[in-house]
Amino acid sequence: MNPPPATDPLLTDPPSGGPLEPERLADLAAASRILAAQGVVDAFGHVSMRHPTAPDRYLMARSLAPALVEPQDILEYDLDSRPCSPAGRKSFLERFIHGELYKARPDVMAVVHSHSPSVVPFGLVRLRLQAMFHNAAFLADGVPVFDIRDRFGATDLLVSDGPKGQALAQTLGLRQVALMRAHGSVAVGPSLEVAVFRAVYTEVNARIQHWAHALAAGEPLAALDADEGERADVVNQGAGMRAWDLWRAQARAANGW
Amino acid sequence: MNPPPATDPLLTDPPSGGPLEPERLADLAAASRILAAQGVVDAFGHVSMRHPTAPDRYLMARSLAPALVEPQDILEYDLDSRPCSPAGRKSFLERFIHGELYKARPDVMAVVHSHSPSVVPFGLVRLRLQAMFHNAAFLADGVPVFDIRDRFGATDLLVSDGPKGQALAQTLGLRQVALMRAHGSVAVGPSLEVAVFRAVYTEVNARIQHWAHALAAGEPLAALDADEGERADVVNQGAGMRAWDLWRAQARAANGW
Amino acid sequence: MNPPPATDPLLTDPPSGGPLEPERLADLAAASRILAAQGVVDAFGHVSMRHPTAPDRYLMARSLAPALVEPQDILEYDLDSRPCSPAGRKSFLERFIHGELYKARPDVMAVVHSHSPSVVPFGLVRLRLQAMFHNAAFLADGVPVFDIRDRFGATDLLVSDGPKGQALAQTLGLRQVALMRAHGSVAVGPSLEVAVFRAVYTEVNARIQHWAHALAAGEPLAALDADEGERADVVNQGAGMRAWDLWRAQARAANGW
Amino acid sequence: MNPPPATDPLLTDPPSGGPLEPERLADLAAASRILAAQGVVDAFGHVSMRHPTAPDRYLMARSLAPALVEPQDILEYDLDSRPCSPAGRKSFLERFIHGELYKARPDVMAVVHSHSPSVVPFGLVRLRLQAMFHNAAFLADGVPVFDIRDRFGATDLLVSDGPKGQALAQTLGLRQVALMRAHGSVAVGPSLEVAVFRAVYTEVNARIQHWAHALAAGEPLAALDADEGERADVVNQGAGMRAWDLWRAQARAANGW
Repeated sequence: MNPPPATDPLLTDPPSGGPLEPERLADLAAASRILAAQGVVDAFGHVSMRHPTAPDRYLMARSLAPALVEPQDILEYDLDSRPCSPAGRKSFLERFIHGELYKARPDVMAVVHSHSPSVVPFGLVRLRLQAMFHNAAFLADGVPVFDIRDRFGATDLLVSDGPKGQALAQTLGLRQVALMRAHGSVAVGPSLEVAVFRAVYTEVNARIQHWAHALAAGEPLAALDADEGERADVVNQGAGMRAWDLWRAQARAANGW
Repeated sequence: MNPPPATDPLLTDPPSGGPLEPERLADLAAASRILAAQGVVDAFGHVSMRHPTAPDRYLMARSLAPALVEPQDILEYDLDSRPCSPAGRKSFLERFIHGELYKARPDVMAVVHSHSPSVVPFGLVRLRLQAMFHNAAFLADGVPVFDIRDRFGATDLLVSDGPKGQALAQTLGLRQVALMRAHGSVAVGPSLEVAVFRAVYTEVNARIQHWAHALAAGEPLAALDADEGERADVVNQGAGMRAWDLWRAQARAANGW
Repeated sequence: MNPPPATDPLLTDPPSGGPLEPERLADLAAASRILAAQGVVDAFGHVSMRHPTAPDRYLMARSLAPALVEPQDILEYDLDSRPCSPAGRKSFLERFIHGELYKARPDVMAVVHSHSPSVVPFGLVRLRLQAMFHNAAFLADGVPVFDIRDRFGATDLLVSDGPKGQALAQTLGLRQVALMRAHGSVAVGPSLEVAVFRAVYTEVNARIQHWAHALAAGEPLAALDADEGERADVVNQGAGMRAWDLWRAQARAANGW
Repeated sequence: MNPPPATDPLLTDPPSGGPLEPERLADLAAASRILAAQGVVDAFGHVSMRHPTAPDRYLMARSLAPALVEPQDILEYDLDSRPCSPAGRKSFLERFIHGELYKARPDVMAVVHSHSPSVVPFGLVRLRLQAMFHNAAFLADGVPVFDIRDRFGATDLLVSDGPKGQALAQTLGLRQVALMRAHGSVAVGPSLEVAVFRAVYTEVNARIQHWAHALAAGEPLAALDADEGERADVVNQGAGMRAWDLWRAQARAANGW
């Protein structure tokens, strides 16, 4: 596939940020399958990581159900979400979620987008998701809800271009998780492992909050406060690797890579 | 099995609409197993497709639990739901759901009937099922409830003849999903793949609405409106194939066909 | 193991009602594993069948987790729940549930006792279990609750002797399912296959009623009435075999018998 | 790894209480995997047992996801939670839960700490966990909630030193289960098998209470009273071995030990 003459940047595939270690590609593909195994994604949803040595590039699978992703399905994108070497492979319509979050948040090294079923309800009501236990400490500084309708009116709900991705990034601000009304959520982290951990425990936390809310009879829940959340999140970023190690081992056993 | 002399059409097996490609029969058998794997059907429920080249015929398994269906279990029916070549094989009592929906809705190419446990409750209460997220956009123009009691009084609840099937088709109207009081639901689509997608996401959506309702404290949910639903449904019919591709691959891995 | 001289019937093992076909023993062992696979029993619970040719005998596994039962674990009992040939094998403490129900109900050919988690709540509250859909038609004539405390004061909750079994049988009356407060439930049927079907769909129905109740905002549910229940139950006893055929095939695939 | 000169007890590894039978180490490793298989622990949580012949020592896996624990991962600790022979292996931050409970409760021979998702909500609300059925009789004398904030202010929620473990032990008192606000719970028992049983049925009971509470419309639940609880708990400690036998067999089949 020969690129056209490089006159219009929109017509030229952006250059790669450089080669990646095969083990990191395998980790990213495994992350897709881990999210499927944990019930965070079904046939839809995606996870990306920023290029380890080229911060203006990110890596994400071609348009494919997460449980089917193999290392060779991973494409490289620039932060405008143009694929570097598509070679005919189809990209996710919503890759702009990823590109725009990497632009807006230099600290973010990985992004998960999902429609996990316990989380979606919290985007449809006034009540907010709170941190129910220490594993979900990253939620303790608040979980905003992005309503695409506010800026873009009636849409197909998808974050399918740069401006919609930028609006979502504004709603997220400096937080780790944002919900998307009638759609799903995003979770970000300083590493692939932490972003996956946060996506999983956002879902677990939502299930816990459903039950807790039903028991509370309208009284406030004894959730983590912001101070407890900050302290517990520090520990989680270390101890959370125990979860990654388990999930990665399970993925390796299932897939051989 | 020699057919009787062709004097009474009710005594003669209707002729076939013509042969089908084996791959399509395998897809239909796989659809049964997909619906079982996704928790939409248990030992009961059925899926059919209109004959691709003979619109007055449809295809459906003999009376058998969906998880056990093989391609050779599939029978052909006319739209009065008479089997073309039963050869002693038993038909589902409720095949009239399928035949009458194909009569009433020329756009419908596939039908799923199920009793999925999250959906049944919405047929027992005044509250209506709504589209909670973009994947369930096909619900955004409303989900009617068919109460067999209204027209037929006390029954065994089954749609076991033409008139009951016609009454159900009237309740469905131009919509994609109808609930059946104290029984289950039907989902239809312009292809087998889309009908299966809709049956699965009707169940997922119901689970989400249960949770959302419990959190809403009586306030309306920020569900998809009809305009959003129409736009998102267009995208789903394309992107939804990602789900079919996943489920079909899983069925193929499990069954070898 | 030589029996003692037959002077005191309580000291003599009762004689067998005669040999059984190996296939029926395999079916009964499979029923145990089916109930475990369907989530009706965990490590506890048991299923029995009346002896096909000796109505004053019944068959049930020795004290063992249902998922581990093999055909050779099955013992024969008289209706006072004395084992015919224990040969050192331990009996379930609660076998009197079975013996006393067979005494009180000549129509009953099989009994399931379980603590399935969705059903237990309905034994702890004033609200009664109702038939939410046609598969659970056998619940439409009411589901009584047995509170052992009423007749026996503070106990360990177990139906561990004849009088307690008789009291439970009185509560059940002519119905098909009775709940046991703070304990579990029993389901009976005119065949092993129907009793297993009823135990499974009591659990499924309970899950549906939990959701339906939460949506109903205090209004009555559009459950099956007694007339609908009677009509649907007739069909279920035939069509329900489709479920048994599926579950038996799955058990055969897993166990080889 | 040569130990430093034994001048400061804090710098010297405590001596072992003596060798263990390999079968008991395998049981303890199996207990980890059983708790994972039963959904009581995910990547986090831990189980320990007191040394059978040295009551001032206990045994627990190194810091590792429970589903990955092998017999050789088990370390020995003194009751101040110092490892006897760490050999570079990392200990759980929260081992002080275990050490301090063994100090405070000579009757306790095993401890489980978990964050099982149905239980956490009861640590966040005023409503208390009650015994919903006979299998959970060990809850009938009450389930206290430990709020680390009461004594230690804002923390990372972890019981990561002796004083925090002692405070938890005071909250537990003579009971069998205590919840930990915004964190999880502990269950104890007179044997490994009983502690595992209690951890599993605390989770099952919590699920049942969620449903029962929703059905009760504010009326009290017909839970076990203290007298019933005491009687049923005696039976459970014997009959509960049926559960351990099942779970141990399943773990053996999966792991080969």
